[in-house]
Amino acid sequence: MNWKLTLSYDGSTFHGWQVQPNLPTIQGTLAATLHHLTGETVLPQGSGRTDAGVHALAQVTSFSLEAAIPAENLLRALNRALPPSIRILSAEAVPEAFHARHRACSKTYEYRIFQRRPNQETTDRICPPFLAPYVWDCRWSLDAAAMQRAAAHLLGTHDFTSFAAADPDLTQRTSEAGAPNPIKTITHSAFTLEDNLLTYRITGSGFLHHMVRNIVGTLADIGRDALTPQDIPIILAKKDRTAAGPTAPANGLFLHHVEYPATSVEHPTDPNAPGISPQ
Amino acid sequence: MNWKLTLSYDGSTFHGWQVQPNLPTIQGTLAATLHHLTGETVLPQGSGRTDAGVHALAQVTSFSLEAAIPAENLLRALNRALPPSIRILSAEAVPEAFHARHRACSKTYEYRIFQRRPNQETTDRICPPFLAPYVWDCRWSLDAAAMQRAAAHLLGTHDFTSFAAADPDLTQRTSEAGAPNPIKTITHSAFTLEDNLLTYRITGSGFLHHMVRNIVGTLADIGRDALTPQDIPIILAKKDRTAAGPTAPANGLFLHHVEYPATSVEHPTDPNAPGISPQ
Repeated sequence: MNWKLTLSYDGSTFHGWQVQPNLPTIQGTLAATLHHLTGETVLPQGSGRTDAGVHALAQVTSFSLEAAIPAENLLRALNRALPPSIRILSAEAVPEAFHARHRACSKTYEYRIFQRRPNQETTDRICPPFLAPYVWDCRWSLDAAAMQRAAAHLLGTHDFTSFAAADPDLTQRTSEAGAPNPIKTITHSAFTLEDNLLTYRITGSGFLHHMVRNIVGTLADIGRDALTPQDIPIILAKKDRTAAGPTAPANGLFLHHVEYPATSVEHPTDPNAPGISPQ
Repeated sequence: MNWKLTLSYDGSTFHGWQVQPNLPTIQGTLAATLHHLTGETVLPQGSGRTDAGVHALAQVTSFSLEAAIPAENLLRALNRALPPSIRILSAEAVPEAFHARHRACSKTYEYRIFQRRPNQETTDRICPPFLAPYVWDCRWSLDAAAMQRAAAHLLGTHDFTSFAAADPDLTQRTSEAGAPNPIKTITHSAFTLEDNLLTYRITGSGFLHHMVRNIVGTLADIGRDALTPQDIPIILAKKDRTAAGPTAPANGLFLHHVEYPATSVEHPTDPNAPGISPQ
């Protein structure tokens, strides 16, 4: 049976999504837990990799199991066996054709910046220790309005080469799926501000390596007046990584959710589905 | 100059407040950072120790430094040098007589329980990974009203021997300040409930070793109907640790704040205070 799992994780103590020898990763922990529960060796495929320290509110993974397990039981058993830093939010049996990465049609990321606002009391300018693992504790006071104008320049279809890091796993990916296409379509790119927390959300057809963190680093440069919103189209046109700003820290980034075409997750005839008796 | 610092910390990665050889502790990290900044060797005294994994929203510590440093500079330098999991919220020069532990007149603790409520959707019954380090992820659905009635039985002056663990550092404490007095006065003891989060707050003249965690473990036993609210006065009267419930996990506990008599923190004549010039 092919499975689609939605999961949330605190990336603080993991070396990213992708399995690595002798290092704790999300994919590796999930594979080990599935092996422990079912005896089967599977490598769950993510909608995409997340880097070391990056979190997920709703990552999606898919894999096939021989064992016939009711979805509710799989979800409960996984949550009992996994560390509290990884939680399975839902488990559903899906058609064989479903693949968490190949079928993803859009992804949304969220990036959280804790910033010092001008004229605040000292105490209010201090990033609480309980927030620190989940934000970029940015020393600057940022011009959110300028960043909002800059963010709008990213909407639409562009070549994002200027915001892409060289991918250390390029060889593997190339053999798998060809060189990554730098042309991506961004359908949402905007900030919200609440107290000291400046939150950026971006939705796109796909993302290049470090793309969101490079975009946020560049937008922060605009927020501190080192660049202007009008520099965004110029940076995009250059197709040169050195034209953009620095890479924002990993721990402020969350994979927010992943979308799939409605047809790709239709339920197959599931012998364990409630209400269907085996006769 | 004698200093009073208010600080917040995420206890997840520390072996408690008290300095220990070769283990990261709050007191040890603070002492090492003060030594790094001033060259002086001091052991900051806390209002009390917190156990491994216990957090603080506003712990208080005191120590004396030879160096004359403006309070604002000390606060900034400490926050730059300390890990993000420890934040100094305020720094003030206080009279020599001030001592964070000896002068404390009351302390407030908060304990956070994530509970599964009946008839909730599966997803809403899952403790988010970002909350897990800061709550007791309790598998039971708790009767908050019964726990509230039980909590009220703790108000007033009682012998709390039944809720006290044997203190591993008793020898040291006894030589310092005599055997701990088990008679404590509780002025606040109540729950608030918001979604899945059941929060207990308790204020008292002082607390014995593991006292709050033993109280919460007992109140949870009442919440799951293993004990009744009327058992609280009986357990108190027995003066026997085995009469009470289990010890709740450390990571749900926060030292909320510490109070001192108003006179104990009056500012001395501070040569670095703003507005006082040295002539």
